[in-house]
Amino acid sequence: MKKHNFNAGPSVLPRVAIENAAKAVLDFEGSGLSILEISHRTKDFEAVNDQANDLLRELLEVPDTHKILFLGGGASTQFFHIPYNFLNRKAGYVSTGVWAKKAIKEAKLFGETVTLASSEDKNFTYIPKGFDIPTDLDYLHITTNNTIYGTEYHTDIDSPVPLVADMSSDILSRPVDVSKYALIYGGAQKNMGPAGVTFVIVREDFLDKRTRTLPSMVDYKNHIDNDSMYNTPPVFPIFVLKETLKWLKEIGGVKAIQKLNRQKADLLYGEIDSNPLFVGTTAKEDRSLMNICFVMAPGYEALNDAFMDYAKSCGMVGIKGHRSVGGFRASCYNALPLESVEALVACMKEFATQHAK
Amino acid sequence: MKKHNFNAGPSVLPRVAIENAAKAVLDFEGSGLSILEISHRTKDFEAVNDQANDLLRELLEVPDTHKILFLGGGASTQFFHIPYNFLNRKAGYVSTGVWAKKAIKEAKLFGETVTLASSEDKNFTYIPKGFDIPTDLDYLHITTNNTIYGTEYHTDIDSPVPLVADMSSDILSRPVDVSKYALIYGGAQKNMGPAGVTFVIVREDFLDKRTRTLPSMVDYKNHIDNDSMYNTPPVFPIFVLKETLKWLKEIGGVKAIQKLNRQKADLLYGEIDSNPLFVGTTAKEDRSLMNICFVMAPGYEALNDAFMDYAKSCGMVGIKGHRSVGGFRASCYNALPLESVEALVACMKEFATQHAK
Repeated sequence: MKKHNFNAGPSVLPRVAIENAAKAVLDFEGSGLSILEISHRTKDFEAVNDQANDLLRELLEVPDTHKILFLGGGASTQFFHIPYNFLNRKAGYVSTGVWAKKAIKEAKLFGETVTLASSEDKNFTYIPKGFDIPTDLDYLHITTNNTIYGTEYHTDIDSPVPLVADMSSDILSRPVDVSKYALIYGGAQKNMGPAGVTFVIVREDFLDKRTRTLPSMVDYKNHIDNDSMYNTPPVFPIFVLKETLKWLKEIGGVKAIQKLNRQKADLLYGEIDSNPLFVGTTAKEDRSLMNICFVMAPGYEALNDAFMDYAKSCGMVGIKGHRSVGGFRASCYNALPLESVEALVACMKEFATQHAK
Repeated sequence: MKKHNFNAGPSVLPRVAIENAAKAVLDFEGSGLSILEISHRTKDFEAVNDQANDLLRELLEVPDTHKILFLGGGASTQFFHIPYNFLNRKAGYVSTGVWAKKAIKEAKLFGETVTLASSEDKNFTYIPKGFDIPTDLDYLHITTNNTIYGTEYHTDIDSPVPLVADMSSDILSRPVDVSKYALIYGGAQKNMGPAGVTFVIVREDFLDKRTRTLPSMVDYKNHIDNDSMYNTPPVFPIFVLKETLKWLKEIGGVKAIQKLNRQKADLLYGEIDSNPLFVGTTAKEDRSLMNICFVMAPGYEALNDAFMDYAKSCGMVGIKGHRSVGGFRASCYNALPLESVEALVACMKEFATQHAK
């Protein structure tokens, strides 16, 4: 049976990237060696790293003012590397969910950390807006998409202080004005590649603000000076990332994928809003195009497990909602084909036919 | 032409691990999904993580007092995580090469760091012995194998203070008395798997000595409490690591591989010592079984590049010595077959026939 991969991350990747990855595991570019057993200090792998860098720069229109890094460790590592580098006096955070709260927790170890706005009062079902941003902050940190709750910033906000954004789960899903950000980071394992590699896009002059003596692996300048190869990088995850970016470019880039993402989201949210058995969980204007959360409508709560079983029987994978929201979450990342959303919608319609009162 | 992979790391892996890795990239255990696109929070991947853990415990006879972690970030990350966790007053380090020096540099950021012994006076060509270990140290740090210079500790030393060892490049090459160590760590990309995953074996009661408030990703206790899944782990590198350990168990485990490693090293060092064109670079008693360094003998220095070209023409890959030693380095990790060493030796003999004066 055809599987429809709605995993929240690690998540669906383009089939061509997977196939090229499997080929490279067996024989990397005709070298007679696996990509898993080559030195990262070879021309062939340096070319992979450079291509990944160039593709991300092109796809996201990253200006020359910003450097791109591919590192190990995960976005959770960046949660403390960012304040370690940049939190000298005071930093501002917007609390929009579990990941934002984790970032805040790490920042508190390094200096004064102010939560400027929070949507915790309504279980993170919306994106706070209209809050004041003090001008004496070292930076303002936001989480542009909230994988667990299914909310998302749909525009690049204006900030009078350096803007730092965790874009783990919506990077490359829409055009971003990178010039508005001092630093963008995220785990690759949603729209950019497999687990095991993290991207950082940092405005070089932001680095001048640092005052601490930093461990080498924490020091962004060190990684920039070494083209992300200060230590052995996660070779294979970077290769797959490069293949994923190549696919994105081939299908038309970020604008094309944004159109497809909107199409997928419109279809699924449309069904949620019209199907009597289901209801969305977030404020409509802040609905994520990446993680679409919904629960059984009032009166139908008892059917939760039955729908889960039915969806599984139709080939749906990874649609169980996070325990803090319940219900269902269909993650519709870039590589998820429209047909998977169509299949889920068909499944919801059929279930409603069977069970609507 | 058959390639002989002497890369210093990332390096040769067992063919069966590579083939199983390629299969899992296309379809992970019949799931219809790639290992690259599954959630780490699935029973199937948790089983991979558990198997990797169990296999390492069995192969290295890790006692119940010690926990095993598989993390992202690399050994270079551990260079600062170790003092961040454990350096309260004073730590002792043995300086046996580039990697030891990097570890010392990071430790100095966190407290008093004493270099108890160093072989830098002779370009790190030997392992210092017979030095005093003060009993007021928080820990003593050693690097058991020096990838660049080709020296290695062949026994587990006695230490009156907690012993911490970077075993990146000789883990699993010989039996180790893990009970003698408070913490063992290393990048997996030599004997254990591909680049992108780091192992840590830590004695649980060593964690009681910590006094700092730590970032979550630095805190070993946090990783232990979350079974190495506090954040998204490097899923695919851990899968390949598990496959590599499975192979090692199948061929007879650490004792069997130690025998093979000795056989390979004896063959190659024997040739270096008997071939008039070549000479070893390290003290004989400290010669690494993993990284075998040699240069052209006096009078034959001008043939360096000619031998490199000839070796390449015979299928040798990755035998260029590190720039700080020069000449040649044949890394003979666990997965390197005896036939590759035989091929290199044949190549050295043939070159000598052509060029000996």
